[in-house]
Amino acid sequence: MSVDATESNAGKQALLLTDAAQLISSVETFIFDCDGVIWNSGELLEGVKETIDMLRSLGKRLYFLTNNSTKSRRQYAERANKFGLGVRDDEIFSSGFAAALYLKTINFPANKKVYMISESGLSEELDQAGISYIGGPVGAVVVAFDRSVSYYKMQYAALCLRENPGCLFIATNCDEVIIPTGVQGLPGEAAMVGAIKGTTKKQPIVVGKPSTFMMDYLCERFNIKREQICMVGDNLETDILFGKNGGCKTLLVLTGVTDLKTLHSPENSIQPDYYTNQLSDLLVGSKLQTPTHQ
Amino acid sequence: MSVDATESNAGKQALLLTDAAQLISSVETFIFDCDGVIWNSGELLEGVKETIDMLRSLGKRLYFLTNNSTKSRRQYAERANKFGLGVRDDEIFSSGFAAALYLKTINFPANKKVYMISESGLSEELDQAGISYIGGPVGAVVVAFDRSVSYYKMQYAALCLRENPGCLFIATNCDEVIIPTGVQGLPGEAAMVGAIKGTTKKQPIVVGKPSTFMMDYLCERFNIKREQICMVGDNLETDILFGKNGGCKTLLVLTGVTDLKTLHSPENSIQPDYYTNQLSDLLVGSKLQTPTHQ
Repeated sequence: MSVDATESNAGKQALLLTDAAQLISSVETFIFDCDGVIWNSGELLEGVKETIDMLRSLGKRLYFLTNNSTKSRRQYAERANKFGLGVRDDEIFSSGFAAALYLKTINFPANKKVYMISESGLSEELDQAGISYIGGPVGAVVVAFDRSVSYYKMQYAALCLRENPGCLFIATNCDEVIIPTGVQGLPGEAAMVGAIKGTTKKQPIVVGKPSTFMMDYLCERFNIKREQICMVGDNLETDILFGKNGGCKTLLVLTGVTDLKTLHSPENSIQPDYYTNQLSDLLVGSKLQTPTHQ
Repeated sequence: MSVDATESNAGKQALLLTDAAQLISSVETFIFDCDGVIWNSGELLEGVKETIDMLRSLGKRLYFLTNNSTKSRRQYAERANKFGLGVRDDEIFSSGFAAALYLKTINFPANKKVYMISESGLSEELDQAGISYIGGPVGAVVVAFDRSVSYYKMQYAALCLRENPGCLFIATNCDEVIIPTGVQGLPGEAAMVGAIKGTTKKQPIVVGKPSTFMMDYLCERFNIKREQICMVGDNLETDILFGKNGGCKTLLVLTGVTDLKTLHSPENSIQPDYYTNQLSDLLVGSKLQTPTHQ
């Protein structure tokens, strides 16, 4: 099987990954989604630690990029390192961090505040970015995942968007479901964002996957070539679309949201370059590798 | 000014109502929206009682048709009659009643339950229709206005829609805003419906305005000719569109949601047949009238 790093796969069906060594050798940077790829329901998936260790030993750059906004980068690194993955804070990009980063990149005025529909992951990132979310005037409404969403919060957000001239509407992501329990799909940010879209008829700026905001930032900040990146995810509509939008290689693992039936459904228009059962399938390629990046 | 009852106004600009007598004589049935037409912020609008009395004295059929689902027909009649309007329960059609009526018309199975996101107006209508909303199996999710909407309710509704085969998704309406205080636009059903649409990617069956479900029911049940109806409302996107969708004459009053600037905006594609400042402008036509329907 040919694994040509520069070959376009537009319109092509995803290939079963049979030559992991060749994929690994063509890639300098791996970007991993976390839920459904690295862990599930709070449990590290089998062989993931060994796979991460192998890729580090080969000198690959690794980033962990999650749409989950409930935790800050610090909280994510803590979780990863409980599993012994040796992840640094600056290797993690959450959609809450992306929202804070977006506000920094557009020079969000120091005298303006953010109104958040979110849990603590976002507020911690805004704190770190020096952006205030207490009081007014509100210059940006950021909608993230929030299990305490309420009519009052919808009302406040909608009023800011309707009445404050130029008020930004930022969504960390628009994921339909999250599966924190591994049992049933529970409403994701699409519920909170859908409520605000519904009542304001405004479209948000989306900073999480599949928007390429984080990919663009990564490539520019660290001078990474897009064709040397492989995006690894479990969700066609966020991870794989993100990778494809960003001009990267894409690898779907079947340990999360997307199953084989969905991948092969005639209604599915999002085809990754490759798919495989689980992340640790990359391990078979390790013995054939030499370091490509230190 | 000519007021031709059968003339199509497709593509025409709304006309200022200058000959109320001619409009009244060409109409057998008036359908009124309530909030913004009959009352505002709990206060009866000036001249409305006299206008209603005048139309009744001319033998016109009157219906009061509201997208507000927070109250039942009984609760609405109580409010109207506190103002001395002499309205019967069967002259009132609320979107909560429409939801119950819709379930009756499709013979919603007796062993199935409704899951409601709503306030008490809907449950009272479901009670009267003999439809249960306690327990399972859930065969229909009805989303109405609910100031106590929560993540738990979103989750329960989404799970029913995702996991119960054939589960219906019914929305009382998709109004962006409600203006109960007369001060600021507050999120309407579009917020609750938007949340469920977002997380399920399903489209609801809408039974309130501008869907013609209630109009079709009225015309069939009471054998009313559509061209002899005038729909009077304050909202282009619900009331006037409803009237136009239903093949009726339409009269916009400027005492509610839509102002003159919005009506005349180049971006507005919804043109009523006529517009006037307030409902009581119809009074000037009363002296020229004789009864048309007893």
